[in-house]
Amino acid sequence: MTVREATSQAGRDVSFRGWLAQRRDHGGVMFLDIADSSGSVQVVVEAETSNGLYETAEAISHESCVEVNGRVVAGRAGNNEIVANDIRCISSARKPVLPYPRSKFDVFDEKHADHVLRNYHLYMRNPQLIAIMRFRSELMRIVRDWFYENDFIEFNAPILTPATLYEEDTALNIEVHGENIFLTQCAGFYLEAAAQALDRVFNMGPSFRGETSRSKRHMIEYWHIKAEMLHGSRNDIIDLVEAIVAHIVEQCQIGCADLIRAVGRGFCADGARIPYPRISYADAVDHLNRVKCQTNFGEGIGADAEGVLEDLLGGPYWIVGIPRSVEPFPYVIDPDDRRVTMVADLITSNRCGELLGVAEKISDPDMLCERMMEKGKWESPSYEFVKDVHQAGCAPHIAFGMGLERLIRWLLNLPHVRYATAFPRLVRRSIYP
Amino acid sequence: MTVREATSQAGRDVSFRGWLAQRRDHGGVMFLDIADSSGSVQVVVEAETSNGLYETAEAISHESCVEVNGRVVAGRAGNNEIVANDIRCISSARKPVLPYPRSKFDVFDEKHADHVLRNYHLYMRNPQLIAIMRFRSELMRIVRDWFYENDFIEFNAPILTPATLYEEDTALNIEVHGENIFLTQCAGFYLEAAAQALDRVFNMGPSFRGETSRSKRHMIEYWHIKAEMLHGSRNDIIDLVEAIVAHIVEQCQIGCADLIRAVGRGFCADGARIPYPRISYADAVDHLNRVKCQTNFGEGIGADAEGVLEDLLGGPYWIVGIPRSVEPFPYVIDPDDRRVTMVADLITSNRCGELLGVAEKISDPDMLCERMMEKGKWESPSYEFVKDVHQAGCAPHIAFGMGLERLIRWLLNLPHVRYATAFPRLVRRSIYP
Repeated sequence: MTVREATSQAGRDVSFRGWLAQRRDHGGVMFLDIADSSGSVQVVVEAETSNGLYETAEAISHESCVEVNGRVVAGRAGNNEIVANDIRCISSARKPVLPYPRSKFDVFDEKHADHVLRNYHLYMRNPQLIAIMRFRSELMRIVRDWFYENDFIEFNAPILTPATLYEEDTALNIEVHGENIFLTQCAGFYLEAAAQALDRVFNMGPSFRGETSRSKRHMIEYWHIKAEMLHGSRNDIIDLVEAIVAHIVEQCQIGCADLIRAVGRGFCADGARIPYPRISYADAVDHLNRVKCQTNFGEGIGADAEGVLEDLLGGPYWIVGIPRSVEPFPYVIDPDDRRVTMVADLITSNRCGELLGVAEKISDPDMLCERMMEKGKWESPSYEFVKDVHQAGCAPHIAFGMGLERLIRWLLNLPHVRYATAFPRLVRRSIYP
Repeated sequence: MTVREATSQAGRDVSFRGWLAQRRDHGGVMFLDIADSSGSVQVVVEAETSNGLYETAEAISHESCVEVNGRVVAGRAGNNEIVANDIRCISSARKPVLPYPRSKFDVFDEKHADHVLRNYHLYMRNPQLIAIMRFRSELMRIVRDWFYENDFIEFNAPILTPATLYEEDTALNIEVHGENIFLTQCAGFYLEAAAQALDRVFNMGPSFRGETSRSKRHMIEYWHIKAEMLHGSRNDIIDLVEAIVAHIVEQCQIGCADLIRAVGRGFCADGARIPYPRISYADAVDHLNRVKCQTNFGEGIGADAEGVLEDLLGGPYWIVGIPRSVEPFPYVIDPDDRRVTMVADLITSNRCGELLGVAEKISDPDMLCERMMEKGKWESPSYEFVKDVHQAGCAPHIAFGMGLERLIRWLLNLPHVRYATAFPRLVRRSIYP
């Protein structure tokens, strides 16, 4: 029986297990908050009638796992509580960690961050972090169900790969059987081959970046939602992404209201307002320069500039036509403006920054050759299979890729992507626990 | 419109896209098999009435992506076929790969294995491999839905980890920010911490082994289905695994009949016969020695010995009580026979070998200390967080771990786990494509 189930049995005798989250000793009467994954309940022990139970309860350390037997009664605050007739310690907590993991403290407060990250194996018992993990699980289910309902096949691309999407020095490299290879930065090369067989595929799994950016939206290990489908244009993939994001927002509001409340930072429903405004990269650069946020054509748009554009357009919004200078090689060059690619980036609201990119991907082997030469990838034997796919009757295809933790951060209004996953792997931080 | 959809439109004019899988030129009449992910259809081109179309069709290379316009008619063999009035090449295949990926050859024949693995990016267009990939996607969905329906929360353990379950020399190691760490062999350490917060958790994601075994059931990268739950005994986790395996078998038979037929190697439904017979490790060793299959108490049971036991018991079957000498440290020692752990292994039928292990896991910090000392892990700072979890009111918990590719191999009767995934990563084989 869970704590929640026990609490609901008004008037009955119940037996349940949980952890000691808090104890308040009022001299003669003691209140214990016993918590599990379902919630928390107040257990009352009275010295006069307890027959030694008071002393037992007094000796239990915070976070010890206990079994409680008692009667469910109506408490003063209107919630049911438990009058204990027996408490047994199943597993005693020997080493206190402060603040107590299941106690009410602001887990997102910067002053706790290092301590929480260092002791994540214990702080995942915190109610706010439990709620985020449950939300993450529900969100993954919602996303996958959308893919299944729209005829996508789940495809697991390998993690170990010879072919990086970005520069090799931004990848994590590993030696296997004497070969120097990499952890995947992006499943795209494998998904485009898979789409040529399966038409519509998606991949949800870990990706790795060796970048040095210490921003609030980067981790070196994260979960990557990738999809690839045959035929269609950039507008088609923009429409598809708007449909999936709006669907996610709606489903979270329907199914995750309790979890959102438990996280306690509200919910961002901006993604439901489709279609999102679009601005071309060229117009964005013009606007930024007009308002003295200097940006040179061909450069990436930084976090400050994203904010300026959010003030102009509201969020989320699309930046359409990202320059070929900043994009890696797999994306089609815009025939109407050969300075830019057929890529669009979706920037979220509330200064959360980029969520995802969509693209028309190259199917023509000659265009592939041009772009691989431009990016210095043409001579590498690691990309032979990518060339093969493009020389073997490659159908035009479109794609998108989204960071799961960025999505969670945006929806739950978290101060950093590190709170969107358990055991986050961060730049220049020890891999521990 | 897919090929399958087009084929169903008897009497109508249709337009669809696909790849040229086969061409048979009978002089004056040509038959093209055009395939996509949904299937294949015969397209007829007659020289007399074709107005140049015959010559166009003649020039198209195998595996080129084409658009076909034509009328759907009843063919001689009873299947619908398409009489073409236009064929347009969308993307020409420039480099032939033989046998043609979408042609009918035995993709599982050992003589093709190296070639297929080297060109997997093209051979994933083979109908049998397409069927396996679709089956894998369906199977993952079935497994996850079972977990969700049984109140498990999906939890993503990190891939980058300081703590290996087995010996470090059987792990893939990687340097990140100057630290020597590892790719996860098993999510167990993180899942047991998560279970202390979330009660029931599962993890589906990649695991890595640096082992040198070149058997038909090992890869260095594979997908690992792991679950961990609070309270309960070894019998409870045995019951749970039998329930999930029987459920999987039943759901595959209901939902995947077409895919199983397309793979063409039958389906193994042995997993539906629950409960599975059990033999203690000690009895197994006695039996093996009686039939002259020499096995010393305390050693692992090899593939030949597994087969001898399958002949005795039928399969699948459980070996209960695996010796502490061969198991890593997290598992409870059997109080009735301290030579063995509270671990049981499930061995499949048809000589497919071990599928999974179940266990009662240690919650008592003193037993953890004893076992970590025994395995030489006690002094390592990488396991401090594991000790912390056990000293912080650790509730008893049970777990299982299953290789997804082993499950697929068993169910679909595949000759090697490498066919159960795209782009398999195999021992002593180049990481390519």
